[in-house]
Amino acid sequence: MSLHNIRVVLVNTSHPGNIGGAARAMKNMGLSRLVLVDPQDFPSPEADARASGATDILENARVVGCLEDALVGCRLAFGTSARDRRIPWPLLDPRECASVAYDEVAKGGEVALVFGREYAGLTNEELQRCQFHVHIPSDPEFSSLNLASAVQVLGYEARMAWLQQQGASDRPQKSQGDERGEEGLERVTSDELERYFRHLEQTLVDIGFLDPQHPRHLMSRLRRLYGRCAIDRVEMNILRGILTETQKAARGEPHKRRKD
Amino acid sequence: MSLHNIRVVLVNTSHPGNIGGAARAMKNMGLSRLVLVDPQDFPSPEADARASGATDILENARVVGCLEDALVGCRLAFGTSARDRRIPWPLLDPRECASVAYDEVAKGGEVALVFGREYAGLTNEELQRCQFHVHIPSDPEFSSLNLASAVQVLGYEARMAWLQQQGASDRPQKSQGDERGEEGLERVTSDELERYFRHLEQTLVDIGFLDPQHPRHLMSRLRRLYGRCAIDRVEMNILRGILTETQKAARGEPHKRRKD
Repeated sequence: MSLHNIRVVLVNTSHPGNIGGAARAMKNMGLSRLVLVDPQDFPSPEADARASGATDILENARVVGCLEDALVGCRLAFGTSARDRRIPWPLLDPRECASVAYDEVAKGGEVALVFGREYAGLTNEELQRCQFHVHIPSDPEFSSLNLASAVQVLGYEARMAWLQQQGASDRPQKSQGDERGEEGLERVTSDELERYFRHLEQTLVDIGFLDPQHPRHLMSRLRRLYGRCAIDRVEMNILRGILTETQKAARGEPHKRRKD
Repeated sequence: MSLHNIRVVLVNTSHPGNIGGAARAMKNMGLSRLVLVDPQDFPSPEADARASGATDILENARVVGCLEDALVGCRLAFGTSARDRRIPWPLLDPRECASVAYDEVAKGGEVALVFGREYAGLTNEELQRCQFHVHIPSDPEFSSLNLASAVQVLGYEARMAWLQQQGASDRPQKSQGDERGEEGLERVTSDELERYFRHLEQTLVDIGFLDPQHPRHLMSRLRRLYGRCAIDRVEMNILRGILTETQKAARGEPHKRRKD
């Protein structure tokens, strides 16, 4: 595993000082890849000052326009979140997050730790682009951590997981949690999953199962279901193939003809 | 154990902003007792600003002249330290520190987490007043954490130790391996899953995706995929509903009519 396969994504950050503080916390913990989604003020001397020497991380930071672009190539995204959301999602504490992230990175995948706005956090839509939510166990009476502090805690747990594994590196590789058997196929990336969800949504509209005027929580529930399945590429091809055939059926194309 | 038996001691802090940031991190983690040894600028509006509402901790902070005074009444002191000191000392990582501290506090004792100056840390004399040294495992190439971040990490581990001891009573019960979040729905039974697979198989035949004469491994792969998803009842109803609508589409029923 390399800690470099863990990217830190900061969404719509208000204060450049927090971006600098996050960069410093990352570098302290051996993380290097920072992605900024629509930052309000960057680059900035305040970010440089708070980075305290972690300026290489700021200089190499990638700036993108939306969370989807930030997650391209990631197999797993972990969204930091306050506790109660209307649709419960797989919820981890920072230590569990590091363990799940580590398992993925050990297989060569990339993962993202996603942090929201200082005052408003991540939107529900952004949270639903993440396969897991992470909650830092804070005092419910005073629960909102400084952004750089939150990056520090998740980065610290990532480093602890990495160090533990380094200590155990002479042990045989274990693939615990991989319930797919010995095939060892890799799970698809976030962007492939997003394309699947778009295809699924359109298909559900085509067959009349999803009413675009009243979508309710249908897509959220399906996102949560498929998000936790660790779908590999062969499975994704099957699922996409089913959708394509379903759409043809909805258009009234008899399938006998499709076999010609 | 009460987290209130853990005091945070900041020695000779230069920047009042760091005192405020430390107060915020403490309050986030449920710690309340701050002791300042000879702070260079306190009280200060900058400390208040960075405390972001944790002003009660600043107002109740005790200011003393030397570390010895700060430690009065403590059974154990943990001094944060870079790794190599000339005199080797019992060295803990933050998790071990929380565990040792917890054992003492559980017996009714008070303990102190001691943090040094921003640039120079603790002197050897100060470190030798501590029974244990704590090292936050940072990248050796860039090892100096922001003071408030260091307080955050040790406070986080203290809270994790406390929560574990509480029996995680602060968190809703979740069964292991249940990655569905906190809704607490049970996964469907094997026979419900079997009925789903039969329905799925028939639907795939209906839309022409599965050739009953040459099924190959299609259903095996789908069984493995959905079998590992721990599908709950609400999700199963959605999946079954999608199949039913797909079958109607395959029969050529326009879905507008189905809504009448």
